[in-house]
Amino acid sequence: MIGVFDSGIGGLTVVKKIFEILPEYQILYFGDTARTPYGNRGAEVIKRYSLEAINFLIKKGAKIIIIACNTVSSVAYDFLKQKIKIPLFEVVTPAVEKAIEITLKNPKYPKRAVKRIGVIGTRATIDSKIYKKLIENKTTKIKVFQKAAPLLVPLIEEGWLKRMETKRIVKKYLYPLKFAQIDTLILACTHYPIIKNLIKIKIGKRVNIVDSGEEVVYKLKKYLESNSAVAKELIKGNQHKFFVSDLTSHNQQIANYWLQRKIKLEKINL
Amino acid sequence: MIGVFDSGIGGLTVVKKIFEILPEYQILYFGDTARTPYGNRGAEVIKRYSLEAINFLIKKGAKIIIIACNTVSSVAYDFLKQKIKIPLFEVVTPAVEKAIEITLKNPKYPKRAVKRIGVIGTRATIDSKIYKKLIENKTTKIKVFQKAAPLLVPLIEEGWLKRMETKRIVKKYLYPLKFAQIDTLILACTHYPIIKNLIKIKIGKRVNIVDSGEEVVYKLKKYLESNSAVAKELIKGNQHKFFVSDLTSHNQQIANYWLQRKIKLEKINL
Repeated sequence: MIGVFDSGIGGLTVVKKIFEILPEYQILYFGDTARTPYGNRGAEVIKRYSLEAINFLIKKGAKIIIIACNTVSSVAYDFLKQKIKIPLFEVVTPAVEKAIEITLKNPKYPKRAVKRIGVIGTRATIDSKIYKKLIENKTTKIKVFQKAAPLLVPLIEEGWLKRMETKRIVKKYLYPLKFAQIDTLILACTHYPIIKNLIKIKIGKRVNIVDSGEEVVYKLKKYLESNSAVAKELIKGNQHKFFVSDLTSHNQQIANYWLQRKIKLEKINL
Repeated sequence: MIGVFDSGIGGLTVVKKIFEILPEYQILYFGDTARTPYGNRGAEVIKRYSLEAINFLIKKGAKIIIIACNTVSSVAYDFLKQKIKIPLFEVVTPAVEKAIEITLKNPKYPKRAVKRIGVIGTRATIDSKIYKKLIENKTTKIKVFQKAAPLLVPLIEEGWLKRMETKRIVKKYLYPLKFAQIDTLILACTHYPIIKNLIKIKIGKRVNIVDSGEEVVYKLKKYLESNSAVAKELIKGNQHKFFVSDLTSHNQQIANYWLQRKIKLEKINL
């Protein structure tokens, strides 16, 4: 089975993409809802919690792991890579590659010599500067502008998707990136696709949007196509499983709504 | 020492009140910042985490415990009382007593036969209905109106204390209580005193405000006055200690700002 790990329920947007693109595979999801959100936490705590979570998925039978969380991918991937012996996919690199490609191919401001990519994410993701470092180390033709947007996760989890307050806050967070006239915006948090349309409107329709959660699924698809033995192994199993470390009716409701299908969250103690 | 426990840093508003009213006592604080916020979590998780936290404070030398968190007081107090052998103060009962007293003595709408108390708190606190049950069981002269306000904690922790967005969201949360024409409003979360003035303006200046964190400190004062042997024991020690399960520069900054003094947060692993 494909293990998908997120600090909470944001990773379900990645699961939804897997359902679309790789419907034949079985998913083993774990969301650390008892300790979510990770986005404001320090690196040591994020590493420790992530390792526990991934070990749980491996114990349950996951043969590869998708880290469907930008905070964990940004802060803990190097650490986890050393500890985990099975294939580990993170969401940052695929988004970086896609953002560079699309920015150079289809910039909003084609006459500018140096193109511009904006990144929004949690405080931990932005403070790690990982997107900025990876992109600017790969090419001198792009400059990266970052903005932490810590209130978006709680607003999205509250279901305030179309409220005036959410619109104002999204606008406020995007303002410095809009002011910087970015060509491309990276959604560096797997919660953000839930308000992708709103973000699109606020940043301007001609800005390219790169969804980190979507890109990792395309990367996974390529990997499975060129590793057919692994792919064969992963197809086995007869049903998806969704584990969480805390189960409330609110979580269950959001999960069904985001996935647009009825699933059963199962509570486990980490 | 007096052990003060909160799910995060909200309990520091209670510590501030202890500093004002009981300056001779030593504080041993623990904030579970690695797993905060508790306010949206289920009861089992809240009980388990709280027990770990309080046992940590006892191991460190606390002789009495203040649960400076409405979520824990609402959902886990009965459970904790059975497990913990030292005196345990929670924030709900003192606020209930004060709210009944002030509402009957000084109602905003004196001509109405049945007076009205409003309560705002986290989802877990409001879902427990503890304030409603306790007040309406004690008197038939008061009806209780509740409203969960889950976005206030993240807004306050972001430091968005005077922003237009915060004002609008506070107004929105208070609207049903204002519409119900309440006489008294209970701030059933130890974060809320940070925006007490804003809340006062939005609910209307003649509505009584009861701060649950403040009331527990008055109750503690009375207890110490009538238990002088305990009080003597608690005065010993020569410095306050502040422990957290996750330490970030953001947390440290908020802590200093809220307490209006420089303290040193120490990180421990629970």
